[in-house]
Amino acid sequence: MTYPIIFDTDPGVDDAQAIAIALRHPGIDLLGMTTTYGNVDVETATHNALLLSELAGRDIPVAQGAAAPMVKARHPAPAHIHGANGLGDMPLPAVKGRADPRSAAQFIVDTVDSRPGEVTLVAVGPLGNLAAALQLDPSITGKVKQVVIMGGSIREGGNVSPVAEANMFNDPDAAARTLTAGWPLVLVGLDVTHRCVLTPAHMARIEAGQGELGRILAGSYAFYRDFYQEALGIDGCCPHDSCALAWLLRPDLFETRRGHLTVPTSGDAEGQTIFAPEGRAFIESRWARTPLVEVCMGVDGQAVSDWIADTLA
Amino acid sequence: MTYPIIFDTDPGVDDAQAIAIALRHPGIDLLGMTTTYGNVDVETATHNALLLSELAGRDIPVAQGAAAPMVKARHPAPAHIHGANGLGDMPLPAVKGRADPRSAAQFIVDTVDSRPGEVTLVAVGPLGNLAAALQLDPSITGKVKQVVIMGGSIREGGNVSPVAEANMFNDPDAAARTLTAGWPLVLVGLDVTHRCVLTPAHMARIEAGQGELGRILAGSYAFYRDFYQEALGIDGCCPHDSCALAWLLRPDLFETRRGHLTVPTSGDAEGQTIFAPEGRAFIESRWARTPLVEVCMGVDGQAVSDWIADTLA
Repeated sequence: MTYPIIFDTDPGVDDAQAIAIALRHPGIDLLGMTTTYGNVDVETATHNALLLSELAGRDIPVAQGAAAPMVKARHPAPAHIHGANGLGDMPLPAVKGRADPRSAAQFIVDTVDSRPGEVTLVAVGPLGNLAAALQLDPSITGKVKQVVIMGGSIREGGNVSPVAEANMFNDPDAAARTLTAGWPLVLVGLDVTHRCVLTPAHMARIEAGQGELGRILAGSYAFYRDFYQEALGIDGCCPHDSCALAWLLRPDLFETRRGHLTVPTSGDAEGQTIFAPEGRAFIESRWARTPLVEVCMGVDGQAVSDWIADTLA
Repeated sequence: MTYPIIFDTDPGVDDAQAIAIALRHPGIDLLGMTTTYGNVDVETATHNALLLSELAGRDIPVAQGAAAPMVKARHPAPAHIHGANGLGDMPLPAVKGRADPRSAAQFIVDTVDSRPGEVTLVAVGPLGNLAAALQLDPSITGKVKQVVIMGGSIREGGNVSPVAEANMFNDPDAAARTLTAGWPLVLVGLDVTHRCVLTPAHMARIEAGQGELGRILAGSYAFYRDFYQEALGIDGCCPHDSCALAWLLRPDLFETRRGHLTVPTSGDAEGQTIFAPEGRAFIESRWARTPLVEVCMGVDGQAVSDWIADTLA
């Protein structure tokens, strides 16, 4: 089985790893990439998406999207985590291709329209492009095959606030719109991505297996790894964005739970993903007002990390 | 060492167990009880506090307080958990004593004033009485010895909302006021109380050791246990409120962490206790704006449950 996907991304070190998987795995038909600000500026994201595609010898459409959140002011990109160029400040070759002239949102709407019921949206950055696509054509909720989102945290706590994961916090309004749109949706958040660690041994195999692309994945990984060592005491990196693709292709490695998500858009819980499991009664019914989605709560982290390395080795 | 305490309570089945400990443990000098709505109406809470004191052969002052939240509308008392009379609908003997004429808040202020630096406030219900005491005399923050609060949840999820514990949700405005008042404070929440289970074997020892009081503790426990079995699949009960006293007398059984608490007072995260560990950097500094407190994050649940039974056996 092959999944036609659009990969919505802000590359970003761990995005680059996931893009390499999307470019290489035989189970994925990468119809295009859409870019957003987040780990980097949107122009850098577009550059990096084009570059990674070219390094893999592919010519994948890249459509640029959101440069800022829907409502709130934008935080600066976290250059200490991903490097100012999003790829650990590695020197990068020039890009030959150019972005698709359409906006990311229009690209999503057109592509989904052209293959109704077939396309999976995999989004691993702030969710402005998906929210904008829903604004252009709310009916895409009935036309996509499914939506897989890397982001959020249920029990794990946040990584940019005490309770919010970065993608959700970076655009909580877009997150609230996207997570409650009523399409078939899976949230792959910190509850599982923090259980996965891509080790230096994994990355050595990836570097050996991917040529010039491997060199850039390994170099950016080394930069990202410094952040993990200093900030979290982990020797290795959590491959957040690759986990979304791992869920798509190896759902057997995950435990999911059905329920309702709500996302506060302001206040101290801004960007939190509040999860009410299906059928669980609370003191008021309001947490069940949103459509049912699937949320990843558990994972075989070792198996996912090995799957990433196996795919790219 | 003996701790002079005021016990602020809404008995309630697990409150009754904790009150029995406060009445019996040689390390506690129970200066008085203050009552609030919560598990029951405030009048019922006052009745039960007086009754439990009399059954233990003690004459402890009981001052009645909040009948409703500071701002929001009140939810009905959870009669399916604690019984309509708060003690599992056990038939109860008549009460001989009467409540102190002062409000709970005034009782707290007067008692703390009379023994500056000595009194510990232990609060195990919605926090309206402590908030009201802070309104009468904000300077009590510098006069109490410490404040121990059963409530909240950091990583455990909520029990009345997906993220909020009942005492905090029942009066989030009072919780926000009390948890950020700047007094020496420890939060004993679901992260630890859900690790403690008072088993039927524990309760058999308690029943045998407490005479008529033991009969009521055991009967109300049986009612409460039905709720735990149906709702949570636990054979036994989480002795939430006793954990606050366990922390006071056996802090060695707990792991605590210093940090900052904030409490949303509205929206889907209403009543959540958002915890920012001391020194942990987030994308904005606002979660560290509140005073430092201690939060219980881990516990030897078996040892705490045994300690409760040993104290009352």
